[in-house]
Amino acid sequence: MPSAEHVVDGIPDLTAVIPAGGSGTRLWPLSRAGSPKFLHDLTGSGRTLLQATVDRLRPLVGDRVMVVTGRRHADAVRAQVPELRDLLVEPSARDSMPAIGLAAAVLERRDPQAVLASFAADHVIGDLDVFHDRVGQAVRAAREGWLVTLGISPTHPATGFGYIRVGPRLQTADSPDSHHVRAFVEKPDAERARTYLESGDYLWNAGMFVVRATVLLELLDQQHPRMVEVLREIAAAPARLEELWGTLTAVAIDHAVAEPAAAAGRVAVVKAPFDWDDVGDFASLADLLEDSADDQGLRVLGDPDKVVNVGSTGVVVARSGRTVVTLGLDDVVVVDTADALLVTTRERAQEVRNVVALLHGTGREELT
Amino acid sequence: MPSAEHVVDGIPDLTAVIPAGGSGTRLWPLSRAGSPKFLHDLTGSGRTLLQATVDRLRPLVGDRVMVVTGRRHADAVRAQVPELRDLLVEPSARDSMPAIGLAAAVLERRDPQAVLASFAADHVIGDLDVFHDRVGQAVRAAREGWLVTLGISPTHPATGFGYIRVGPRLQTADSPDSHHVRAFVEKPDAERARTYLESGDYLWNAGMFVVRATVLLELLDQQHPRMVEVLREIAAAPARLEELWGTLTAVAIDHAVAEPAAAAGRVAVVKAPFDWDDVGDFASLADLLEDSADDQGLRVLGDPDKVVNVGSTGVVVARSGRTVVTLGLDDVVVVDTADALLVTTRERAQEVRNVVALLHGTGREELT
Repeated sequence: MPSAEHVVDGIPDLTAVIPAGGSGTRLWPLSRAGSPKFLHDLTGSGRTLLQATVDRLRPLVGDRVMVVTGRRHADAVRAQVPELRDLLVEPSARDSMPAIGLAAAVLERRDPQAVLASFAADHVIGDLDVFHDRVGQAVRAAREGWLVTLGISPTHPATGFGYIRVGPRLQTADSPDSHHVRAFVEKPDAERARTYLESGDYLWNAGMFVVRATVLLELLDQQHPRMVEVLREIAAAPARLEELWGTLTAVAIDHAVAEPAAAAGRVAVVKAPFDWDDVGDFASLADLLEDSADDQGLRVLGDPDKVVNVGSTGVVVARSGRTVVTLGLDDVVVVDTADALLVTTRERAQEVRNVVALLHGTGREELT
Repeated sequence: MPSAEHVVDGIPDLTAVIPAGGSGTRLWPLSRAGSPKFLHDLTGSGRTLLQATVDRLRPLVGDRVMVVTGRRHADAVRAQVPELRDLLVEPSARDSMPAIGLAAAVLERRDPQAVLASFAADHVIGDLDVFHDRVGQAVRAAREGWLVTLGISPTHPATGFGYIRVGPRLQTADSPDSHHVRAFVEKPDAERARTYLESGDYLWNAGMFVVRATVLLELLDQQHPRMVEVLREIAAAPARLEELWGTLTAVAIDHAVAEPAAAAGRVAVVKAPFDWDDVGDFASLADLLEDSADDQGLRVLGDPDKVVNVGSTGVVVARSGRTVVTLGLDDVVVVDTADALLVTTRERAQEVRNVVALLHGTGREELT
């Protein structure tokens, strides 16, 4: 009875874990190290990506939301989500495995049967009904001991995402869209991406994991036993966080758990045909803003009254309060902030991260 | 003995007249109605176009410089040229003929033999020795009663300038580069411009006039006798300026005097093979800034340390104090000021004036 679980408190044994990290250097100068993309409203919805992520999970988990973030962003997270129940603050960045692992260790102490669902703080998802249904299916598979991921049905031969190679359907009555995972595969080149798309056997890896806390730690234990020990010590004695955190290996959950578990046949994937985007760069931001396009095809994030367009397409991010005029440009990207301006094209959007490196290399760290 | 005239006080009977008007709408948002282009340093020389115009004329006229400008700009002109001897302030804009005509009427009262040389406040000229020599030749022809213009030797088939059709050499011993003018011709289309260039019979009309004050008023009298009367009344009784100025017809010196005088065989032209530009738009600004190009071909007006370029060509005007990053753009134009930003291409530079009209039409006059 999946629908019975969609009550105010959501699925009783489920907690959402939101690792809120990353600096989003390809979205500079909008996203900065001190103010990364999850703290920004990138869709013009009036909610930041973090807030929208919490909003989206509420029907599934009620107030059982746990955010894991760096010390530098803890105050901003509290300000944006004042009703947040659990905020785990990392003393230093250790990539996603220690962050999600600590959440698992904390939850396991509260409830040995607890299921966690981990979603990045800075992704955009459409079609909430489908999202909620697929998370529900993932939870039911997770209760049976699977490490479950949600795999996004690809809509184009993307080269910017990793893929999941799908195996046969899982024999689970109440999780009809679940399949075995054969393997996680790296970001492909364009030709390989086309073959993935045509085969129908591949889904986009969106980094979403649903798993019993204990199962996650057990899988991690097979690769990094010392890490599991330390995470459980911290969960038992939070005062020791500072002392122990620095001893943890910085590693992504994909490498530490998901890939080896897939090789061991322990990973399932729920096919998820909803719109999804990781807002990786300004080209993808422009895609998201399609509805804001003016009659000439220019998309605007910010106050449209501050943008005067004559025959241009592309995207303008107007965040400085100044008037921005674009005249006769194709697929331009203009990002106007109080202290820095970026002008580029959608085609070159991926290279914005190089700009941030260049700013570091030329003594302009204060802008990054 | 032309060289004898190049002393500290210059050519004794010569006064420079600098009509300082126009709003330079194709250089928006750098140039504004309240701060037109002649008040700006557009070459990175450290001197504004007005200051550079005065500097350039000093060796010819000493301190005999007369600027004619609108009431709105009088304070700025005085601040930029504090040593200015004569500043005529127009109560309202009446185009170039009343402005230069008033200067002529004032000079005629001081010295009936006075020669005036009129140069726009917002042009850029290279090769000063040639400039000074050609003005000297023009003065000598002017003393003989000619309305003399300087015609720039064209370097390409420009469609943005008017042309002068040159006739036979003038029979004047000490003005070897002077010719009769057959006609002033309008801005041509591209094909006609090519035939002009190939023929060798055409020069660019840079709006430079050298003429005895009395001769100018006499020529004007043939078309606009009432205007000459009023101008002489004002010169005799400056207190009546306010009362009489508004009665004058707004007309350009080209139409009021130069074209009819050419038709009457009264105009001479000195061939002037120096670099000249009216800095009409950002494409021509970019040409002027060639020496400022970085190793990738981007030109910068403003603090080059504020511009970070990755693989772009074109021009950046950095006037807001913010850091401007250009990534992967061809022939881009970025003009960054405190309250407005323009992004366009060199190709579309001429259309910037339409933007200003659009700003007026959409309630954004305060930006123009």
